Amino acid sequence: MAIADKTLGSLGEFGLIDLIRQKFRVPHGTVGIGDDCAVIPSGTDDLLVTTDMLVEGIHFLGDKIAPEQLGYKSVAVNLSDIAAMGGEGVGTFLSIALPPSTPQQWAERFIEGYRAISDRYGVPLLGGDTTSSGNDIVVNVAVLGRLPHGKAKLRSAARLGDTVAVTGTLGDSGGGLRIILEERPHDKDAKFLLDRHLAPLPQMELGATLGGSEQVHAMMDISDGIASDLRHILSASGVGAVVDLEQLPLSEPLRRTASLYGWQAERIAASAGEDYELLFTIDPSAALPKGTTAIGRIVEGSGIEWRSGGRRLEDNIMGFRHF
Amino acid sequence: MAIADKTLGSLGEFGLIDLIRQKFRVPHGTVGIGDDCAVIPSGTDDLLVTTDMLVEGIHFLGDKIAPEQLGYKSVAVNLSDIAAMGGEGVGTFLSIALPPSTPQQWAERFIEGYRAISDRYGVPLLGGDTTSSGNDIVVNVAVLGRLPHGKAKLRSAARLGDTVAVTGTLGDSGGGLRIILEERPHDKDAKFLLDRHLAPLPQMELGATLGGSEQVHAMMDISDGIASDLRHILSASGVGAVVDLEQLPLSEPLRRTASLYGWQAERIAASAGEDYELLFTIDPSAALPKGTTAIGRIVEGSGIEWRSGGRRLEDNIMGFRHF
Repeated sequence: MAIADKTLGSLGEFGLIDLIRQKFRVPHGTVGIGDDCAVIPSGTDDLLVTTDMLVEGIHFLGDKIAPEQLGYKSVAVNLSDIAAMGGEGVGTFLSIALPPSTPQQWAERFIEGYRAISDRYGVPLLGGDTTSSGNDIVVNVAVLGRLPHGKAKLRSAARLGDTVAVTGTLGDSGGGLRIILEERPHDKDAKFLLDRHLAPLPQMELGATLGGSEQVHAMMDISDGIASDLRHILSASGVGAVVDLEQLPLSEPLRRTASLYGWQAERIAASAGEDYELLFTIDPSAALPKGTTAIGRIVEGSGIEWRSGGRRLEDNIMGFRHF
Repeated sequence: MAIADKTLGSLGEFGLIDLIRQKFRVPHGTVGIGDDCAVIPSGTDDLLVTTDMLVEGIHFLGDKIAPEQLGYKSVAVNLSDIAAMGGEGVGTFLSIALPPSTPQQWAERFIEGYRAISDRYGVPLLGGDTTSSGNDIVVNVAVLGRLPHGKAKLRSAARLGDTVAVTGTLGDSGGGLRIILEERPHDKDAKFLLDRHLAPLPQMELGATLGGSEQVHAMMDISDGIASDLRHILSASGVGAVVDLEQLPLSEPLRRTASLYGWQAERIAASAGEDYELLFTIDPSAALPKGTTAIGRIVEGSGIEWRSGGRRLEDNIMGFRHF
């Protein structure tokens, strides 16, 4: 039994997950806790299930995010997990707790945003739960997905020599968050970054392409920044990686905005969360699909060795922490 | 657009669900919002998904419920929804938001309760999400289940002339709640009722038996009391029902305790929530399975006509309201 006065604040998110994982056995052939989705064999398919809880005051500020954006985002982050396994979405399930004083219009606008992304990706809302709440708005979305049996891309599948690559550009969402926090003017570049922060696009199409390729080995989505997320692939696969900051794909709006305000764009790209791009490892002989960029390679060892233009960096780049 | 100052408190839970339902189309062959579970065709099976959110201060009081009991109950209420369709559980997904000041021991005890019911029913935890929370503990459990294609028991399937029946005894959980609220001594009968309130047993086995019978038409679980829940079957099926209070199955501990404290046991049985027994309609020529009791019959019209020993009651018995 643990020391009685130890709190979850000191244990941390992954400590709590480990506590849970130790207590449960997963049936043979099923992937449970520890990947983007659970993978459950069902006839000729594998089912995918992922779930994500957003809490007011922790993940969003009620007066800083429009309800449409919250509705949109609560689906987007889960579809991104389905994309990360190479799957397609089947349906979503919404649980929402709202204080009784919440204006009906708030709920209507939330539903509009939820519907917009559901329609965009053709993944219907199929059920859920509504309840009142004493203090905070809490949104939980679970998504059911599927793909052909045995084809899910797991975090544990990286191989020595693999190229490490990502889709799209990194750090745009982190840049958008800085625009908000530093109260910068909303010029054209800022608007691009804000849009990437508030309405991320889950990479369903590229996810399906990468998922269908035998040369793609491990895959996950980038929610906490590659500095944090890549470590999950490395520890699950028992390997290390060398990543070069200068190879991280940056958008022009992020480059220009970083230069304007003296931000270190590469650091934001490496460590800021909520890009919802995909991070994957691929056989080094394979051609990289359009829209993806190599950023490093899988090596023996553990953890990430950061370089910048080939020069080894001494410091540790950290991703987003939940607790 | 609705009136801007209307709040969810005035709209109510079912108003919010209707708002959501209006905005989403469900694919052909799929059952979405409005039954105990969503039903999604998948090869030779139908998949079932249900989800339930429990909020501190609304569904439980942090200092009144033991963490083991909360862990147990958060799974039980969802398995009951799977039983209500006649299905079997495949796996559960836990999202939990905890204030950082939560003792680690609280989390460990919660997990113990969660594991106890998972083991009892052989339904493993396969994934989820952990996060911190600013104020309240929030638990969301989603359950994936399955059954052979086309065999799900829907709320909309009641037929004229059907017998209305329930499993087990009704009102025990409501009696247990009264023991707590009225601060009654915990004698043997009180302990029985408290146990039924704090550790309800989802009727997986009877659910599967009833689910496998072609003579059983509509089915759902009893979470808000039959006075409220039966109305869902009636409106979904476009029929009415006559129910006799004196036919409601009561446990001896509830009878004795009600007599001791001057409670109306039949009223508690009809209107108190959280029994997690099953409510179903069955062809009147069919023999009722062991452990079930006839309480009325399906008639033309709408709503419930309450009787007591054959005599028509004038008042309306109401179930539990969520907002």
